[in-house]
Amino acid sequence: MSEVVQKSRLAKQAAQTMGNLTTEQKNTALLLMADALVTEQQAIIEANAKDLERGKQLGTSASLLDRLALNESRIAAIAEGLRQIAELPDPIGDTLEDFERPNGLRIRKIRVPLGVIGIIYEARPNVTVDAAGLCLKTGNAVVLRGGSSALFSNEKIVEVLHSALKRSAIPADALQLILSSDRSSVDEMLKLNGLIDVLIPRGGHSLIQNVVNNASVPVIETGAGVCHTFIDESAQLEMAIAIGLNAKAQRPSVCNAMETLLVHEAAAAKHLNVIADAFTGANVELRGDERARALVPNMLTAEAADWGTEYGDYILSVKVVKDLDEALEHIREFGTMHSECIVTEDASNAERFLQEVDAAAVYHNASTRFTDGFEFGFGAEIGISTQKLHARGPMGLPALTSTKYRIYGSGQIRQ
Amino acid sequence: MSEVVQKSRLAKQAAQTMGNLTTEQKNTALLLMADALVTEQQAIIEANAKDLERGKQLGTSASLLDRLALNESRIAAIAEGLRQIAELPDPIGDTLEDFERPNGLRIRKIRVPLGVIGIIYEARPNVTVDAAGLCLKTGNAVVLRGGSSALFSNEKIVEVLHSALKRSAIPADALQLILSSDRSSVDEMLKLNGLIDVLIPRGGHSLIQNVVNNASVPVIETGAGVCHTFIDESAQLEMAIAIGLNAKAQRPSVCNAMETLLVHEAAAAKHLNVIADAFTGANVELRGDERARALVPNMLTAEAADWGTEYGDYILSVKVVKDLDEALEHIREFGTMHSECIVTEDASNAERFLQEVDAAAVYHNASTRFTDGFEFGFGAEIGISTQKLHARGPMGLPALTSTKYRIYGSGQIRQ
Repeated sequence: MSEVVQKSRLAKQAAQTMGNLTTEQKNTALLLMADALVTEQQAIIEANAKDLERGKQLGTSASLLDRLALNESRIAAIAEGLRQIAELPDPIGDTLEDFERPNGLRIRKIRVPLGVIGIIYEARPNVTVDAAGLCLKTGNAVVLRGGSSALFSNEKIVEVLHSALKRSAIPADALQLILSSDRSSVDEMLKLNGLIDVLIPRGGHSLIQNVVNNASVPVIETGAGVCHTFIDESAQLEMAIAIGLNAKAQRPSVCNAMETLLVHEAAAAKHLNVIADAFTGANVELRGDERARALVPNMLTAEAADWGTEYGDYILSVKVVKDLDEALEHIREFGTMHSECIVTEDASNAERFLQEVDAAAVYHNASTRFTDGFEFGFGAEIGISTQKLHARGPMGLPALTSTKYRIYGSGQIRQ
Repeated sequence: MSEVVQKSRLAKQAAQTMGNLTTEQKNTALLLMADALVTEQQAIIEANAKDLERGKQLGTSASLLDRLALNESRIAAIAEGLRQIAELPDPIGDTLEDFERPNGLRIRKIRVPLGVIGIIYEARPNVTVDAAGLCLKTGNAVVLRGGSSALFSNEKIVEVLHSALKRSAIPADALQLILSSDRSSVDEMLKLNGLIDVLIPRGGHSLIQNVVNNASVPVIETGAGVCHTFIDESAQLEMAIAIGLNAKAQRPSVCNAMETLLVHEAAAAKHLNVIADAFTGANVELRGDERARALVPNMLTAEAADWGTEYGDYILSVKVVKDLDEALEHIREFGTMHSECIVTEDASNAERFLQEVDAAAVYHNASTRFTDGFEFGFGAEIGISTQKLHARGPMGLPALTSTKYRIYGSGQIRQ
C-alpha cells in the first residue's frame, strides 16, 4: 500500500471520531499544539535551516527563501494563529434548519465535518500549521501534501504537533503529512475518492490547474485573481487614486491585488495624467492600450496577453473605455471572478456594476484588497474560493463543513 | 466548433442576463412553457412514438420503454410540475448575510445563479422539462444532454419550450439541448471549464461514475444508495416491520429504498421469523448471513458482494448483529452515505446512531423513503446529493445557486 493510501486510510478512520469531539476538546488540543510549537521552536528552526540550505544549493530565489524561512518571531506568530482559531466559534453541530412536516416528521439540518480534507500546497511551512488548525477545529481529519522545498520543516512541525495531539482528545492520526515529494503522490491524492472528501489546492496557477483538471475528488478551487478597478466618469479623483494605488501597490503579489485599471473616457481625458503619475510615483510600470497611450504617451504598450495576466508585481495594464458597458464587457472577458471594483458617485452605475459583474466580491468605492477572511471578520481563512460551488470568496470555518439531515419519527412510512 | 462548445457558449452568453431577470419574468416564462407543452402535446406524443418504435426495434426492456413513454396525462403532469416550480419562492437575490465592519465597509452576501448548469441524464424525457424548469427558475442557463433513446422526444420538447421562451423575457439560448448522441459529446462537456459551471449527472451508476471520475468541471454527485435499516433490541416489532417493508418494497427501484436489514441479535432471536415472513409475503427475496440463516433456514445465502449491492429490486440482504456498534461498523463499511435508519425505543442508542452515522439523512423510527425534495417540503428536487460539498441530501432550488459578496464603501483602503 502506498504512503498516500495508507495515511489517508488512517485519516479516514480518525475522522470517524473527530465529529463527536466537543468544542472544548478540540480547543484544548489547538492550544497544546500552539504551546508545543513554541517549546520546540529550536528543533523546528534547525529543520528549517536544512530546507534553507538545500534551497540555496538549488539556487532558489531570495523571495522564495524568505517565504520558507522560520525564526522565533514567525513561529510565535504561527502559534498565535492556532490560539486565535481556538477562540473562534465552532460551527460543528449548529442547527441550520429545524422544521416539522405535516406527517409529524421533525427534520433538523445540522453542520457536520466534511470528513477528510486533502491540502496540496507549496513552500510555506506556516500553511502546515494553519491548515491543520482550521481542519481540526472543524472536526475534520487532514492529509497535508506540502512542497518538497519545505519537507524538513514540515516533517518536524508535524512531529511536534503529533506530540501535542497525543496528549489531547484528537487522535494523532487525524493529522497526516505525506513525505513523498514524488509528483505521483499528488496524482494519487487526486483520485482518492472514498478516502479523501475534498481537496483544497493552495499555491500557484499550475499547481491549482493540475488539481482542478485531474482530480476526481471534489475540489475547492482557490486562486487566480485578475482583478479590475473601473474609474467611472463621476468618480472622485482623489478617492479613485487612493483605491487604485492600494489595490495595486499595497501588496502586489496577492490574488486580490488589481491587475488592470479601466478608466471612463471622460475621466481619462481630464485625469489620466495625474492618475498615471500617482502609479508611476509608486514604482508601478504602466502598460496602456492605444487610447491610454494617446493621453499618456510614456506608458508602455499593453499587448493582447496583458489583459489576462496576473502580474503579481508592480505592473498595471490600463485601458480607456467608452462607458460602463465597455467596462463590464472587458471584465466579463478577462476577469477571473475574484474581486472587481467600481469607483463612482453615480448610484445607478454602482448598482449595475454590483449586480452584473459575476465575481466572488464586487466593490463600490473600496479597494479589492479587502477580499480576505480576516478583513471580512471571519477570524480565519483557508483560502479564497474562485469557484461557485460550495463556497465563494473568502472561506472561514463554515466552508470546511458539510451538513446532515437528522430526522425524528414515530413510525412514519411513505404513502 | 463542436455542437457542445457552440451551444455552451450560447448558454453562457444567455446566463449573463438571466441573473438580472425578475421573479415575475421567470415565472411567466415557466407558465408559458407549461401551456406550450399541453398545446403541442400531439406533436410531442408523435415524436415520442418514434423513440418508442426505435426502442422496440433495439429490444429495449418493457420497463425502460414504460419510463420513456409519454401520453396526454403524463404530459399534463409534467406541465403541472412547471407550474408548481413557478409557485415556489425565488431564492435569487436573497440576502444571506448583511454586516458592517469597523472600518465602515458594509458587506452583503446574496444568492446568485450558478451560471451554466450541465445536466447529463438517461432515458426519461420528463427530466428534460424538470431540469429546464428548475435551472431557469434559479436564473441559470442549462445545457441538457439526454440519452439517445429519448432523442426525438427531447428534441421536440425543447423545440416547444423554445417557442414559449421566445414569447418571454428568458432568452431561448438559456435552454440548450445537445443532439449528438455520440459519447464524445459527454466527454467534451466534462472538460468545459469556463463555459459550464457545474455538472449534475442523473442516472445509473456507470453514468454517474463516468462524470465523477472524468470531469474537470465541478460536479454534484447524485445517486447510489445502499441504505440500511437497523432494528435494535428495543424496537417495537410492528413499527419495525412497517418501516422495513416501506423502505424496501414501496418502490424498490429508487435510491432511498433499503437494501440491507440489520437486526440486533436479541430482536432476531425473538422475531426474525415474523420479520422474514412479512418480507416474503411482500414478494421480497431474502439473502441472509450465517446467523440470520441459522434462525430462518429458508433464506438464501448472502454472498460477500451482496452487502455492497444496490439491488433496486425486491431483494433484501439480512444480517444479524451483536449490538449497535456492529451495526454502525457495517454501515461505515458498506453504506453510501445516503439514508440510514434505526428503529429503537432506546433514546441514547437513537442519539448515537443519528450522531455517528455519516450520511445525508439519518432516521430514527421512520422510513428511509422520505429522503426526497417533495417529502422534505422543498416543492422540487433536482436530485439527491450523495457528496458532502455544496449540497447534501435532497436538493431544492437553493442547491442551484451560488453567492456573491457585495461590498459598499466610501473610499476604504487596506492598511
